[in-house]
Amino acid sequence: MIKTYVKSADYSYTAGFYPTFELLKYRPSSLKCIYVAEEAINTPGFKKLSEVVSKDKIIFSNKAFNKLREKGNDHVIGVFYKFEDLLEKNNQHIVLVNPSDQGNLGNIMRSMLAFGYRDLAIIDPSADSFSPKTVRASMGAIFAMRIQHFDSFAKYLSDYSRLYYPFMLQSAKGLKEIKKTNENYALVFGNEATGLPDSFANGHAIKIEQSKDVDSLNLATAAVLAMYYFKNIK
Amino acid sequence: MIKTYVKSADYSYTAGFYPTFELLKYRPSSLKCIYVAEEAINTPGFKKLSEVVSKDKIIFSNKAFNKLREKGNDHVIGVFYKFEDLLEKNNQHIVLVNPSDQGNLGNIMRSMLAFGYRDLAIIDPSADSFSPKTVRASMGAIFAMRIQHFDSFAKYLSDYSRLYYPFMLQSAKGLKEIKKTNENYALVFGNEATGLPDSFANGHAIKIEQSKDVDSLNLATAAVLAMYYFKNIK
Repeated sequence: MIKTYVKSADYSYTAGFYPTFELLKYRPSSLKCIYVAEEAINTPGFKKLSEVVSKDKIIFSNKAFNKLREKGNDHVIGVFYKFEDLLEKNNQHIVLVNPSDQGNLGNIMRSMLAFGYRDLAIIDPSADSFSPKTVRASMGAIFAMRIQHFDSFAKYLSDYSRLYYPFMLQSAKGLKEIKKTNENYALVFGNEATGLPDSFANGHAIKIEQSKDVDSLNLATAAVLAMYYFKNIK
Repeated sequence: MIKTYVKSADYSYTAGFYPTFELLKYRPSSLKCIYVAEEAINTPGFKKLSEVVSKDKIIFSNKAFNKLREKGNDHVIGVFYKFEDLLEKNNQHIVLVNPSDQGNLGNIMRSMLAFGYRDLAIIDPSADSFSPKTVRASMGAIFAMRIQHFDSFAKYLSDYSRLYYPFMLQSAKGLKEIKKTNENYALVFGNEATGLPDSFANGHAIKIEQSKDVDSLNLATAAVLAMYYFKNIK
């Protein structure tokens, strides 16, 4: 019987058909098993699922749902082993320094997938990048990501030396002033409450132009504006 | 003694110094009272607060915090009477049709304030636009908004007839193709799960260009991309 999720576990889970199909699509070898609620056996979702998963991975159990599911309307839970990858050197990277909110983490993964970023560096300490809440917020995009954790930004940079753009409220340069680059780059974002320390300023720091009426933007909001802009610079 | 928040109450609250100052700045007449934790009496935040609020509005009580606060690190709770406004006809509007997530609602308010939108129409049924969770996600931006609820989009349009851009995955036109307009406009977004019904298509529908790898964007994400783009069209 599966237990309630804890951070130290070597597995996590995703709830609902859509993200479970994402798990099967991108990370089939990470699949541990799939719990299906008995009342879902005759649904189109389950029929489709049973076509792509071997039967010995499927467990019919209403008990698992009473214990695990966060919302009442999910009929499937995909349990998966946590994974960690090396980033792809020849891609653009997103770097999150000490992100503290699981919802933001998942939301950023979803935006990354939407705008063609697949490589995510996370500088610890950070929110649990595999918690069911993160997975849910990602809508399954987490399975399409390469995610690598680092003890420090310096360690990241020594492994993946490159041009990087730190997003800092202190910067004088606005997002709209940025010109297209052909280099591999990283977009770097700080913690929700504290942002990036001054030490990150490197001549490429960017501030997203915003009214003086707000303290700052939400982290996931700042990240998606940056991603969309960088993918659309002319 | 204040009670745990319920949707039917005529008041709600905000936790933490920053959003409480936003309440005092934008909605001083909506203030009911402020609870302050006894251990915060000697903090700079409280000193600043005591300079701008009359003493009879301040209640020292640790009990209120045990009962109300969502996170352990807040030392002040601003209780306010809910408000409703008419929108400003001569401004641009954001229209949310049946939004279901309080976090998204608050997050969108925060982005609105960041990019100069102050007028928010909400088509019911919707998530509680005054719940403490919404208020928290808005970081106090809610107090700077004019918010008006409507029973239907038709009712909104009959009150505020204008050019409107519905955001729909079905649309053929990408965000980047949109040209600057001098008319007053509304940006219209549907429910998180279901989007806007086909009936909204009006020749101005917009799709945010995204990879085929994601189902859709998060609502707050789509909204902020639209807002940023519209404020920066040349």
